[in-house]
Amino acid sequence: MTDPRKNTRDIYPPTGPELNAKSWVTEAPLRMMMNNLHPDVAENPHELVVYGGIGRAARTWDDFDRIVAGLKDLEEDETLIVQSGKPVAIIRTHKDAPRVLIANSNIVPHWANWDHFNELDKKGLMMYGQMTAGSWIYIGTQGIVQGTYETFAEAGRQHYGGDLTGKWILTGGLGGMGGAQPLAAVFAGASCLAVECNPDSIDFRLRTKYLDEKAETLDEALEMIDRWTKAGEAKSVGLLGNAAEVFPEIYARMQAGGMRPDIVTDQTSAHDPINGYLPIGWSMGQWKDKRETDPKAVEKAARASMKQHVAAMVDFWNADVPTLDYGNNIRQVAQDEGLENAFAFPGFVPAYIRPLFCKGIGPFRWCALSGDPEDIYKTDAKMKELFPENEHLHRWLDMAQERIAFQGLPARICWIGLGDRHRAGLAFNEMVASGELKAPVVIGRDHLDSGSVASPNRETEAMLDGSDAVSDWPLLNALINTASGATWVSLHHGGGVGMGFSQHAGVVICADGTEDAARRLERVLWNDPASGVWRHADAGYEIAKDCAREHGLRLPGILG
Amino acid sequence: MTDPRKNTRDIYPPTGPELNAKSWVTEAPLRMMMNNLHPDVAENPHELVVYGGIGRAARTWDDFDRIVAGLKDLEEDETLIVQSGKPVAIIRTHKDAPRVLIANSNIVPHWANWDHFNELDKKGLMMYGQMTAGSWIYIGTQGIVQGTYETFAEAGRQHYGGDLTGKWILTGGLGGMGGAQPLAAVFAGASCLAVECNPDSIDFRLRTKYLDEKAETLDEALEMIDRWTKAGEAKSVGLLGNAAEVFPEIYARMQAGGMRPDIVTDQTSAHDPINGYLPIGWSMGQWKDKRETDPKAVEKAARASMKQHVAAMVDFWNADVPTLDYGNNIRQVAQDEGLENAFAFPGFVPAYIRPLFCKGIGPFRWCALSGDPEDIYKTDAKMKELFPENEHLHRWLDMAQERIAFQGLPARICWIGLGDRHRAGLAFNEMVASGELKAPVVIGRDHLDSGSVASPNRETEAMLDGSDAVSDWPLLNALINTASGATWVSLHHGGGVGMGFSQHAGVVICADGTEDAARRLERVLWNDPASGVWRHADAGYEIAKDCAREHGLRLPGILG
Ligand SMILES: NC(=O)c1ccc[n+]([C@@H]2O[C@H](COP(=O)([O-])OP(=O)(O)OC[C@H]3O[C@@H](n4cnc5c(N)ncnc54)[C@H](O)[C@@H]3O)[C@@H](O)[C@H]2O)c1
Ligand SMILES: NC(=O)c1ccc[n+]([C@@H]2O[C@H](COP(=O)([O-])OP(=O)(O)OC[C@H]3O[C@@H](n4cnc5c(N)ncnc54)[C@H](O)[C@@H]3O)[C@@H](O)[C@H]2O)c1
Repeated sequence: MTDPRKNTRDIYPPTGPELNAKSWVTEAPLRMMMNNLHPDVAENPHELVVYGGIGRAARTWDDFDRIVAGLKDLEEDETLIVQSGKPVAIIRTHKDAPRVLIANSNIVPHWANWDHFNELDKKGLMMYGQMTAGSWIYIGTQGIVQGTYETFAEAGRQHYGGDLTGKWILTGGLGGMGGAQPLAAVFAGASCLAVECNPDSIDFRLRTKYLDEKAETLDEALEMIDRWTKAGEAKSVGLLGNAAEVFPEIYARMQAGGMRPDIVTDQTSAHDPINGYLPIGWSMGQWKDKRETDPKAVEKAARASMKQHVAAMVDFWNADVPTLDYGNNIRQVAQDEGLENAFAFPGFVPAYIRPLFCKGIGPFRWCALSGDPEDIYKTDAKMKELFPENEHLHRWLDMAQERIAFQGLPARICWIGLGDRHRAGLAFNEMVASGELKAPVVIGRDHLDSGSVASPNRETEAMLDGSDAVSDWPLLNALINTASGATWVSLHHGGGVGMGFSQHAGVVICADGTEDAARRLERVLWNDPASGVWRHADAGYEIAKDCAREHGLRLPGILG
Repeated sequence: MTDPRKNTRDIYPPTGPELNAKSWVTEAPLRMMMNNLHPDVAENPHELVVYGGIGRAARTWDDFDRIVAGLKDLEEDETLIVQSGKPVAIIRTHKDAPRVLIANSNIVPHWANWDHFNELDKKGLMMYGQMTAGSWIYIGTQGIVQGTYETFAEAGRQHYGGDLTGKWILTGGLGGMGGAQPLAAVFAGASCLAVECNPDSIDFRLRTKYLDEKAETLDEALEMIDRWTKAGEAKSVGLLGNAAEVFPEIYARMQAGGMRPDIVTDQTSAHDPINGYLPIGWSMGQWKDKRETDPKAVEKAARASMKQHVAAMVDFWNADVPTLDYGNNIRQVAQDEGLENAFAFPGFVPAYIRPLFCKGIGPFRWCALSGDPEDIYKTDAKMKELFPENEHLHRWLDMAQERIAFQGLPARICWIGLGDRHRAGLAFNEMVASGELKAPVVIGRDHLDSGSVASPNRETEAMLDGSDAVSDWPLLNALINTASGATWVSLHHGGGVGMGFSQHAGVVICADGTEDAARRLERVLWNDPASGVWRHADAGYEIAKDCAREHGLRLPGILG
């Protein structure tokens, strides 16, 4: 039997101003879905895997083909329905309704665990949607760079007076998202040692300029770090190895008077103990084979290794090294494995990101459907013009232009919030209308955003009122974006922290230069971040309440 | 401190043709929310409880007032956002978008259990939405009569050649939904013995004519049953007692040559072990007190009693008495308590209802906002006219008119499916437009329907392909109804089977006689049942595939 998920086709999204579908609002999801599988974008495109363990863009290759055919044929008052990567139906809706509605990996809570998911997945009844994989707005590693940069910069402000010169960050994982860490560290002014077990991942990051150097031994890597930090240089090295072994080793050396990291974190795919985390002592080949033949054995070994990994992180934390969970649920696994103080160190959201979420600030992003980098450079300039007072944004855009290589369709990300997002959207729409841009752009965001996710070990960890696990909010977010006229909307379960641990929603809207689009952009890019502001205002955050009042939000049950 | 959930106000929805809100599409949710708390409709309106354990219409009385105020003020291009019974925001959308979007009781899976819910509920962060309580389309006990009638009638066809004359049904629970059982049994031609521990519930059913007699002792009740069945009469008796004691007692007497029930089921609120099920040996007063002072003790005792209750049901099943779980999750509790063969007898959906779901047939309902029973009688006549060949429907409408007392706003329910629902909706809309009806009607359904629920112990038990727990479907259903222009849409968790065991969606649409409404009705009342047809087609049911082909559904991933 041939595997319906394996193929050797290379997928490139169409570019240029010519339509393949019947309108730009259907061309947009078509190009973006294909872009998610672009060889420069996806981690393993031949198996439909975009990033984050087994986060896929479509359930099978047949489904991929049917989605393409469906979108090409879709009218402007029709909607394509996608269930865990399979295009189940095409229905009649209306022009202001989304063109695609997506639900991925959702399971009734009592059954919402990896075992049951894997059973469904194997039967061909599901796929893992991650966050932006199954919702077609992954834009390569850049997508995560700014978030990581914001986090490291804020950690620098909190712990090192805002100056990371001569400091270094220890982390693990150089995958789709984790690969952003060395570059973000360098942007923030720090050096970085990233432990990665897959030589291909290291080479991929070197090739795309996210990483400066590689090393085969810890001595070699630490020697580089020593040299760079002493010279006040910010550079990065990828060390081939297993983080679960290397972290304790570095801690032991530190205790013995060796080098001390200034920040410790991790982005291996710990959220997925079968496919995402190499157990100690296993070779890559062994790992790959066993995932097929004995997934339970892989899981058991991986979980045991994670416990050691987290134990080392707790050791660093107890030795006063700022340590943070970077949203891969590794503390939960370690705790389940019996490490009682696994949650000793905080997650990155409560530690550094929540004040931004309170203002609806999160990973806003857009992508040029033309395929032309010039279109993005023009929008970069427009952003500076729109927000002349936002120095932080200007600095970011300069660094991004200089250092970030586009992957697939050119795209940009920057963290802006309520009141700014719809202005950017309307401005881009005008640029499309006037012909300044060569084709429409799509505007979207990560599911990791202010109002779009419930994830008690990550985005909603330690909420002020204890509402961490309340998932009414992301469900409402998806309904609101559907009602506001987004181009496509998605509801996922699992995402970056794995089965059972989060529910989250995605949204993308196409700026095709029409007045219809302007109306929709204004509503969607206002209501979407506003939903984050009120979610945090409801939880009692004063910043969010102030922001709501300042923007005149009508919140009867919250502001009275 | 006064309890924000307790009040002595009596709520009556406005009636007549005059608006209190700014349009009928906002007046409709206003009247329906208030109708859910009408003294003749709700089980415990002073505590905002509509039915099904603690299924509420609003989180607190303040929230109730703010919802009312919000709806009165809402424009035709605005949307009210309700999170677990609290009106959090009013946003700008557009005319074809829903006027209210609701998410109730949703919790991230890993935390989705009663303990965590109760903690959130106590903190004032949540309420239990049940199915139609928090989504404002409960219409009193009639809502469940037809479903129960269809089930008993189908059981009669499968086990007794279609004739239930002289047969009797043993059941438990005469609450909001369970109270429909005696009348449904009588409609289906059988007598009924219902064990109920709350004398008020028995009296309520007697008063509203759902129940014929009451008895204080088992002897008395069985004597009536004996008399009725021998005379070929179909009548019902409510026995004051604890089902967990009475069921084993009847089984023991049967084994000793006593009377043998012909069908056994149960509708105590077993889905909620703290608030819904009286433990053996406890008085009602004791139960009420302990729920406040020591809920854990109640839960423990209730779960142990349920185990005995289910054990008796398994005994009946093993003695060849048709026995069915009626959707209250009681088998799951018994199994968790160590009763290994708790799932020996089937749930009612796979046993009797699924073939209907395959054609999108489910509990379609409508309600006259005028408050005038004549409006419903006119729609009854219209239904007969629209579907002259559907004898089953005609019989049902005749019985309903004759025997079902309206509660609150007059309403009607009947089970119809894809291809019929939108025809009824359009016809009603025309009757509103022409002035034949005194005011608009709303059209909705239970969350228990063909495409709107994932509930592995009930609606999606034993699906052909094993997709019982896949909840992409109800989430898509809510997105689709939002995109199609429903008047309000809801997404709930828990419902009739309790925390962790189901996710489900509701929809209501207002037929205000306008052409806009006609367009929306046509889309919503087509797409909503269609989503049930394709969900079952995807699972491999031939009836559903045939139905999809017959109606020309475009299902690329399913029909190819
Ligand atoms: N904080 C955030 O904002 C955020 C965002 C997205 C994803 N995440 C989470 O971060 C994790 C990484 O995401 P990704 O997209 O990079 O995943 P990925 O699967 O693409 O990459 C994971 C990398 O870790 C490596 N790895 C696995 N086990 C290892 C080990 N024992 N030692 C060293 N390296 C090991 C793998 O070889 C791979 O390159 C995921 O759990 C994801 O959910 C966090
Ligand atoms: N099959 C379906 O279609 C369907 C639909 C809705 C609800 N349900 C389920 O049926 C159950 C009943 O729903 P409801 O709305 O009637 O709930 P309810 O809470 O209004 O009524 C439950 C009744 O059971 C009685 N009761 C509790 N413990 C008892 C005991 N040990 N012995 C005898 N009586 C006892 C209570 O006094 C109460 O009157 C719920 O679990 C609900 O989720 C099933």
